[in-house]
Amino acid sequence: MTQNIYDDPEFYEGYSRLQRSVEGLAGAPEWPALRALLPDLRGLNVVDLGCGYGWFCRWAREQGAARLLGLDVSEKMLARARAATSDAGVAYARADMEKLELPEASFDVAYSSLALHYIEDLAGFFATVHRALIPNGRLVFSIEHPIYMAPTHPRWLVGAEGHETWPLDAYLVEGPRTTDWLAKGVVKQHRTIGTTLNSLIRLGFAISHVEEWGPTDEQIKVKPEWARERERPMFLLVAAGR
Amino acid sequence: MTQNIYDDPEFYEGYSRLQRSVEGLAGAPEWPALRALLPDLRGLNVVDLGCGYGWFCRWAREQGAARLLGLDVSEKMLARARAATSDAGVAYARADMEKLELPEASFDVAYSSLALHYIEDLAGFFATVHRALIPNGRLVFSIEHPIYMAPTHPRWLVGAEGHETWPLDAYLVEGPRTTDWLAKGVVKQHRTIGTTLNSLIRLGFAISHVEEWGPTDEQIKVKPEWARERERPMFLLVAAGR
Repeated sequence: MTQNIYDDPEFYEGYSRLQRSVEGLAGAPEWPALRALLPDLRGLNVVDLGCGYGWFCRWAREQGAARLLGLDVSEKMLARARAATSDAGVAYARADMEKLELPEASFDVAYSSLALHYIEDLAGFFATVHRALIPNGRLVFSIEHPIYMAPTHPRWLVGAEGHETWPLDAYLVEGPRTTDWLAKGVVKQHRTIGTTLNSLIRLGFAISHVEEWGPTDEQIKVKPEWARERERPMFLLVAAGR
Repeated sequence: MTQNIYDDPEFYEGYSRLQRSVEGLAGAPEWPALRALLPDLRGLNVVDLGCGYGWFCRWAREQGAARLLGLDVSEKMLARARAATSDAGVAYARADMEKLELPEASFDVAYSSLALHYIEDLAGFFATVHRALIPNGRLVFSIEHPIYMAPTHPRWLVGAEGHETWPLDAYLVEGPRTTDWLAKGVVKQHRTIGTTLNSLIRLGFAISHVEEWGPTDEQIKVKPEWARERERPMFLLVAAGR
């Protein structure tokens, strides 16, 4: 089973204080770019894979989605998600993304935000999602960018005059990466962009957009500290059609 | 016009001594991976965009391709390419990739090896190639990987115990990069993988394979110095269908 770091008390405590946990979608700088990849959700059945506190599920219902199914491995997050809505159009359930089961041809849209880098068998996960989508259904997801995940020692290196670089190594060595982010021993699965895209293509998905996210000029004006995110991408956003 | 660095005497002199110039396709470590993306060439019309010495054109004819058109901006390289064959099925012509003109719906396969990173208007180039391919035609190319091209100061950094990293910066800052490779002031155009793939998708190409090339175990056994190429990818290989 995928490591359920979200129910680790120390991790959960830290995670719940992140801007994206407190402010929801508005606190996630990549959200406008990810949202732009979604179709008009009115009347659609949507599954959110790694729904966390349910911010996306509630937003999607506001956009007119017919039904939302939010899945997550974390009981704590599901409890908060459930407490945040009384909307009968939103259902939450616990699911281990590593052995995901979904009804066939049941969803118009599958969405996932920053969850897939925890999955070991990503090809198996994509296969399940492919079966669960209707023909012409869409998959939209964000994942940590492999440049961000790859290094043996992920860190900024400050050079002369304060210029920062991101010392990359092991990019082509796929597999687990253990970091101490919010808690000790968080395990993520590093894969190249090529591997992720080819997994989708092999299943019959048509890649419709690939974006290595960086902040806009407007975002940097508001938060100058985001400028460094242009040195190396933190997130990879992908849209694909079934 | 794209900088024609290949006819710079110093660059040409250095280039002509590279392993891939002396040995041809067998001297290019990424060739087996690139070749694997090509369809069976028997009876097909093929254009090689940036054909250099014509190694690929001659090889493709050996595979049974009906006709080969090799295009390059370098007079010197074309002269050597022409001198190397008397095959009537191979034609060479001078072309600036920046304002490429090709007859419509004339080729089954468009191929390009390590030339596209010199092109400023890559979207315009892809549009020309798209028009020149027949329906279901294929585009197969290699390009320098953006991780390799992006840095302000591309170099290996040697850390404790000789471990090498590749200090990445400016990955999301697209545009020209000037380096001193074989000659001073070689200008290449840095773009993210996303930008390159989205340019293709927008034109109607279906992405069929994306590979961030690294050496195989067998290649490293023969040439241990290639092991470092696993730290960061040097080449990006792409196949797409019209």
